[in-house]
Amino acid sequence: MAQLVECVPNFSEGRRPEIIREILAQIVQVKGVKLLDHSSDPSHNRSVVTFLGDPQGVKEAAFQTVKKAAELIDLDQHQGEHPRMGATDVVPFIPVSGVSMEECVDMAREVGKRIGTELGIPVYLYEAAASRPERKNLAQVRKGQYEGLKTAIKEPDRHPDFGPAELPRAGATAVGARPPLVAYNINLDTDRVEIAQTIAKAIRGSSGGFPSIKALGIRIEETNRAQVTINVCNYREVPLHRVFEIVKTEAARYGVQVLNSEIVGLTPMEALIDAAGFYLRLENFAEKQILEKRIME
Amino acid sequence: MAQLVECVPNFSEGRRPEIIREILAQIVQVKGVKLLDHSSDPSHNRSVVTFLGDPQGVKEAAFQTVKKAAELIDLDQHQGEHPRMGATDVVPFIPVSGVSMEECVDMAREVGKRIGTELGIPVYLYEAAASRPERKNLAQVRKGQYEGLKTAIKEPDRHPDFGPAELPRAGATAVGARPPLVAYNINLDTDRVEIAQTIAKAIRGSSGGFPSIKALGIRIEETNRAQVTINVCNYREVPLHRVFEIVKTEAARYGVQVLNSEIVGLTPMEALIDAAGFYLRLENFAEKQILEKRIME
Repeated sequence: MAQLVECVPNFSEGRRPEIIREILAQIVQVKGVKLLDHSSDPSHNRSVVTFLGDPQGVKEAAFQTVKKAAELIDLDQHQGEHPRMGATDVVPFIPVSGVSMEECVDMAREVGKRIGTELGIPVYLYEAAASRPERKNLAQVRKGQYEGLKTAIKEPDRHPDFGPAELPRAGATAVGARPPLVAYNINLDTDRVEIAQTIAKAIRGSSGGFPSIKALGIRIEETNRAQVTINVCNYREVPLHRVFEIVKTEAARYGVQVLNSEIVGLTPMEALIDAAGFYLRLENFAEKQILEKRIME
Repeated sequence: MAQLVECVPNFSEGRRPEIIREILAQIVQVKGVKLLDHSSDPSHNRSVVTFLGDPQGVKEAAFQTVKKAAELIDLDQHQGEHPRMGATDVVPFIPVSGVSMEECVDMAREVGKRIGTELGIPVYLYEAAASRPERKNLAQVRKGQYEGLKTAIKEPDRHPDFGPAELPRAGATAVGARPPLVAYNINLDTDRVEIAQTIAKAIRGSSGGFPSIKALGIRIEETNRAQVTINVCNYREVPLHRVFEIVKTEAARYGVQVLNSEIVGLTPMEALIDAAGFYLRLENFAEKQILEKRIME
């Protein structure tokens, strides 16, 4: 089975397209890596880039983008609405296919070390790659942002995992590993947004639901219908079918039906195959039975 | 999206492994083509080979195997239980991903013409590629087998679509296009095989059910449970979820539950994604949202 890893680095530049172009050029030149998406937000002054490939290629592409961003972005000149601490702010490695979370943690450590050593940029390991529990959470790692970290980095508790305990103008970078996130919305056959809000509260981790689920109840203007908008942050822990069935059951309590659901953006194939397997009660099914997987071997 | 076509040629040799090896060697040497499976049946004296790849590679590999089989297999010497008319008996092209049935029909015509012209082997187009309705059915095309076709081929009705109206010792070959077949079994929580047989009768085309469904009711020795064993011959016409739900409903009529289901062998990803989409009521989902599909582009 081909090994596939996704990487979604965030860069502190969302206004000058020529800078972004130079960063993207680092990705497309690496063999075995495919640029999937990029979007820039001028008010955040930040860009999110998504690429995919084999582990070796993804490590190299990630390092080269961090290097280029450090050359081109000066945090002393950077202003934007989104919190940030570095030219490359975060670099998460995400297992998609044929790769374990542990392997992505190893990738984060290897690339993080290289960024610290070769580029002299302080690196903090975060999420699944965190070296201590309090660094799992990105907000904790980034506390004080670039400006605050200039002095805070001297405190032993805030020393980076790799690189100097001193902030260059490229700032610091968080490098980590996390499961693929599936953006999943469930539309209700009602305009009563409070029902979607109650259901969101029931399933999300922040109010006692599943720790890996984030959810909000909102109203969609175009259709005048309530929607439970969900981030499934670990579909192996909480698969799509379980989210769908719980929302359906909770909605029924108010006499409301689930109209449909939608996946926003990208998803690993596995998240959907798992749903098919659940509903068809598939026994002994292996991914290698899928023809498309065979050609990727 | 990468274009993927499957090809499952059948050869009239199931006893001499050295002959099969030489035929398989024709496949593995073609770039962009992957040999997935092969099995030989000595009593049938027949081998079934499965390979997968881009259209160009699959056409070339198919032609080369037919050429090699014609060199090595003499139908005047061939005996076996399975009906056959040629050294290469059938060559179906099967759309898997990013390819339409019409494109596979074109592939069948192109390869069929080449076999007729370059190798002097009579070729009959069959199934979706058939040039007339009565040739859709392979059994009709192969009527009389190799021995009977020696004289029957002279009749205008039995003239081949390509190649001479005269049978060489390599016989004739049926070249066609058909949808992927999914072998799908549904296990019932009962030992009463007659319930599985009644349900099989309800869904299969031969007794008034879906034309593209073949089904039998059998008893599985190991588990002492009844099973509806099904060939889903066109999952776009009759998707897996519909088969599953109908079997469940019919079984309930006898107070019997569906225990589970299983896919035997290979399936296109789409057959499972469709099932996930049905049960999750997915709106506006496109295959290009699947990460693995993106790397195949």
